[in-house]
Amino acid sequence: MTRDYEIKALLFDVFGTVVDWRSGIIRELSAWGTDTHVVADWPAIADGWRGLYQPAMERIRAGNRGFVRLDILHEENLRDIFAEHGLDAPIGEEMHRLVTAWHRLDPWPDCVSGLTRLKASYVIAPCSNGNIALITNMAKRAGLPWDVVLGAEVAQAYKPHAQAYLGSADALSLKPEQCMMVAAHLDDLEAAAELGFATAYVPRPDEHGKGTGAKTAPDGSVDHVAIDFNALAENLDC
Amino acid sequence: MTRDYEIKALLFDVFGTVVDWRSGIIRELSAWGTDTHVVADWPAIADGWRGLYQPAMERIRAGNRGFVRLDILHEENLRDIFAEHGLDAPIGEEMHRLVTAWHRLDPWPDCVSGLTRLKASYVIAPCSNGNIALITNMAKRAGLPWDVVLGAEVAQAYKPHAQAYLGSADALSLKPEQCMMVAAHLDDLEAAAELGFATAYVPRPDEHGKGTGAKTAPDGSVDHVAIDFNALAENLDC
Repeated sequence: MTRDYEIKALLFDVFGTVVDWRSGIIRELSAWGTDTHVVADWPAIADGWRGLYQPAMERIRAGNRGFVRLDILHEENLRDIFAEHGLDAPIGEEMHRLVTAWHRLDPWPDCVSGLTRLKASYVIAPCSNGNIALITNMAKRAGLPWDVVLGAEVAQAYKPHAQAYLGSADALSLKPEQCMMVAAHLDDLEAAAELGFATAYVPRPDEHGKGTGAKTAPDGSVDHVAIDFNALAENLDC
Repeated sequence: MTRDYEIKALLFDVFGTVVDWRSGIIRELSAWGTDTHVVADWPAIADGWRGLYQPAMERIRAGNRGFVRLDILHEENLRDIFAEHGLDAPIGEEMHRLVTAWHRLDPWPDCVSGLTRLKASYVIAPCSNGNIALITNMAKRAGLPWDVVLGAEVAQAYKPHAQAYLGSADALSLKPEQCMMVAAHLDDLEAAAELGFATAYVPRPDEHGKGTGAKTAPDGSVDHVAIDFNALAENLDC
């Protein structure tokens, strides 16, 4: 694809693309279960918790609820998934510990080195549905070297709503065509591409568990495909 | 002062506190004048440009105008100060060059090393009236290692309006009491302290020109006084 604009910023999806949310959430739930003597199927609860993520945001995207940050949705969804598994929802500090499990996720092994390389040539920023505190705490713990935190809370809209992408580019005073969206999810890239963003697909085949696979991008649907962030840096001559 | 909360984040004023705006703006204006063969009293124009900053924000703080980002106020103010000096306002790329002069300011010599030390123990973030793109571009050029960009555009309010401080703390999911405002300006610190923020005064006696002096903080008016960011890091046992 020939482009008229020079790319200035790379905007990254985070859950799945930068961090391995599933392993981290299972680890955090299991540790909480051990400490509180609660026995449960934590991998199923982790998947169920994540499963409530899109429906919760959809109410906001559809305009049936005002914007609230993801930490609040995570707390509401945890109550629901715990109830579904016959567990009492934790309260106070215990609830805080579980909700902030999403702040303590580990990146895929290539992310810190790859982002560091990319940062030398581009503004790098998360364009995540995670709220500012979540993404900031995660970055600090994991050493993710973002230049700035953008995404849903800055734009006051959840991806794939157009405003989430457009508001993030606009915060940098950039046109969509000057930004590249980087994600492990083709629907995220498709939504960004429709608005004029360049796209890079970095599949993460282990996102939903070891070897659960990743989709192949249809021919011509994305600008770049890379196996990880270091490969993306090579593709982009960083 | 005894405090009940542990400080988690340091929020920094930027213009004057982190960067030497006056030298940078004079340098950028002078270079533009050389390139375009425009002769003028650039130090006076720099001071005049900055002088229009508070009145422009005041219209927004007073509710007489909706929030617009600082780049827009800088452009409007440049037209006014150029007119005052009998100069034609530049257009297009030339105007862009001058407006983004504020994105290309140099930090005081202690800032990068001091912020790097402070970052090891605290979330460090600008709480500036500068817009997100301005602060991001400045940080990238100067190597300022912010964890996250907060301030006026995130909070949609200009300091010293309470919402500028409260919105920045809230974006981190922190109470004001868990945040320390760091500034070279006592009025900025006073506004933050009234809301419950801890305060650190780092006077910058050269802000308005070499040796133009800095005020002494009245006894008990601030929590910390430090000669620069490395001294602040020492005060805070970083």
